[in-house]
Amino acid sequence: MSEMTRVALDAMGGDHAPGEIIKGAVEAVQKRKDIKVLLTGREEVLKKALSAYTYPEGQIEIVNATEVIQTAEPPVAAVRSKRDSSIVAAMKLVKRGEADAFVSAGNSGAVLAGGQILIGKIKGVERAPLAPLIPTAKGAALLIDCGANVDARPSHLVQFAQMGSIYMEHVIGKKNPTVGIVNIGAEEEKGNALVKETFPLLKACKGINFVGSVEARDIPSGAVDVVVCEAFVGNVILKLYEGVGGTLIKKIKASMMTSPRSKIGALLVKPALKATLKDFDASEYGGAPLLGLKGLVVKTHGSSTAKEVCTSIIQCVAFKKHNISEKIQAAVQKTPDEDQGQ
Amino acid sequence: MSEMTRVALDAMGGDHAPGEIIKGAVEAVQKRKDIKVLLTGREEVLKKALSAYTYPEGQIEIVNATEVIQTAEPPVAAVRSKRDSSIVAAMKLVKRGEADAFVSAGNSGAVLAGGQILIGKIKGVERAPLAPLIPTAKGAALLIDCGANVDARPSHLVQFAQMGSIYMEHVIGKKNPTVGIVNIGAEEEKGNALVKETFPLLKACKGINFVGSVEARDIPSGAVDVVVCEAFVGNVILKLYEGVGGTLIKKIKASMMTSPRSKIGALLVKPALKATLKDFDASEYGGAPLLGLKGLVVKTHGSSTAKEVCTSIIQCVAFKKHNISEKIQAAVQKTPDEDQGQ
Repeated sequence: MSEMTRVALDAMGGDHAPGEIIKGAVEAVQKRKDIKVLLTGREEVLKKALSAYTYPEGQIEIVNATEVIQTAEPPVAAVRSKRDSSIVAAMKLVKRGEADAFVSAGNSGAVLAGGQILIGKIKGVERAPLAPLIPTAKGAALLIDCGANVDARPSHLVQFAQMGSIYMEHVIGKKNPTVGIVNIGAEEEKGNALVKETFPLLKACKGINFVGSVEARDIPSGAVDVVVCEAFVGNVILKLYEGVGGTLIKKIKASMMTSPRSKIGALLVKPALKATLKDFDASEYGGAPLLGLKGLVVKTHGSSTAKEVCTSIIQCVAFKKHNISEKIQAAVQKTPDEDQGQ
Repeated sequence: MSEMTRVALDAMGGDHAPGEIIKGAVEAVQKRKDIKVLLTGREEVLKKALSAYTYPEGQIEIVNATEVIQTAEPPVAAVRSKRDSSIVAAMKLVKRGEADAFVSAGNSGAVLAGGQILIGKIKGVERAPLAPLIPTAKGAALLIDCGANVDARPSHLVQFAQMGSIYMEHVIGKKNPTVGIVNIGAEEEKGNALVKETFPLLKACKGINFVGSVEARDIPSGAVDVVVCEAFVGNVILKLYEGVGGTLIKKIKASMMTSPRSKIGALLVKPALKATLKDFDASEYGGAPLLGLKGLVVKTHGSSTAKEVCTSIIQCVAFKKHNISEKIQAAVQKTPDEDQGQ
């Protein structure tokens, strides 16, 4: 049997916790023999919920945590004060080396803050970026950073490019992934101060396949595999993807209900349409990794159901198998300046 | 007869120039008696093209300009060196008060740079923002700024909110338009340094209907009428709108061709679907104004056809009728600080 990947799972976080979270854990261990899930949360609640399922019992363990950090709580204060919350308990397991990874659908801010405060960054990593996969015409691209690190510096963006490339290649399986920096034009001299300063550093950075600027227009068609930007812009991209897609789909559905003729047509195209829209739904891609920490942290959507939770848990196996943390540490220790000097 | 609005039109700019540009001018004067178009470009070419149409001849005049600024030319250098280009000639007409407005589908950078260099900003205006209308579920919102003014300061964003509100209310006809600042969360303490500094200034600014932060996710559903952001973020929003919409529509069309059943359905839904997609196409909204200049400058899409050119020309009438430049001058002279001190 291959080595076990131990995943600490926040059983109390998310809109559908603990029901869907626990179901996701059960599905993951039913599918894979090489995963052990450590469920953090209220023991009596979790025990009862688990008793409804049949699964390989040695692969799920409950770690009691009596508190819950709510979605709307101020993140940093919550992480510091609720020491016995399901999020903090799970992070401590990673910190102590008792778990390899942590998955949560709970309070995003608490997961991001807790990751940096409790688990800590890999030596040499300046900031830990959140890097969701977004759907494109060619499959998916990694959008890095969408986290809470606003007002980034050029050196941060270079590390995002390095970490994103490693994740995309080894966890997602995209060989020699292309890297682009989000810009307002294709030319090197275009952009704001941050992009102009970062561009030559990315060009000089060894070990990544930097292809230059990418305009927002070209992201959905799959122009690059790793989309580098600072977190404010990344957040706008991620949310607007969702917003434009959602509004457009609503309008299309409404338009099909306007006449008897189009209503019949709608019935006929429905199955094909449904498959396409699912393809273009970011939530199909499991969770977003928070990269650069001593252990993997995966944030899944607050509205995650069992399926997304299961996908997110399984993602952790590749992360561990390919020693992503070690690869990141090796990459960031060679700064672009050192590369240039060689 | 009401007062004439004199529109200088760059007949040589855009993918379909001069044919579609001239056709657009003819359509505008056929529709409206209160418009005079001053076509700038090569006289012999324009004369020949115009001779194919019947129109009220006193309403179109040719102003000879022998040079053309190409789409790929460096904008500032082109505006400075090609003094007899169709863009520079048209801007000079506005500068000298011989035209009220300038419309171009040509080199964006040259139009933006030329507007600031040749026409000049209204007294008190710090930067001239480009403000396209973007489609939403409720109609359209004004996205301000999408121009070349990257690395904006808080005072710029306050003026964008003021100018955008005036344009939205008087030219587009939206009473007391709501204003939101693009942010990564709804709370006042969220955001990057620029947004955090700008937020209290917008709250204190009189004469605008500021409603707080708007997340990118909520822009397409029509959460606010005036979407304020700095130009880099604005450019990302505008281009991503186009990119996500385009990719999604392509995928939907392809999905409908996958089976005989869905092909028949596609035929039935086609008319309704076409109307909806047109509704959600930014190019239907005519050109984007470059606000804050001594005279209106309207940039239409490079791929504009006669219809968009005609719409853009007609937009200029409301701009003149409602004395937008005077209103902007009056608004920016009261800075938020003065308001607070009163």
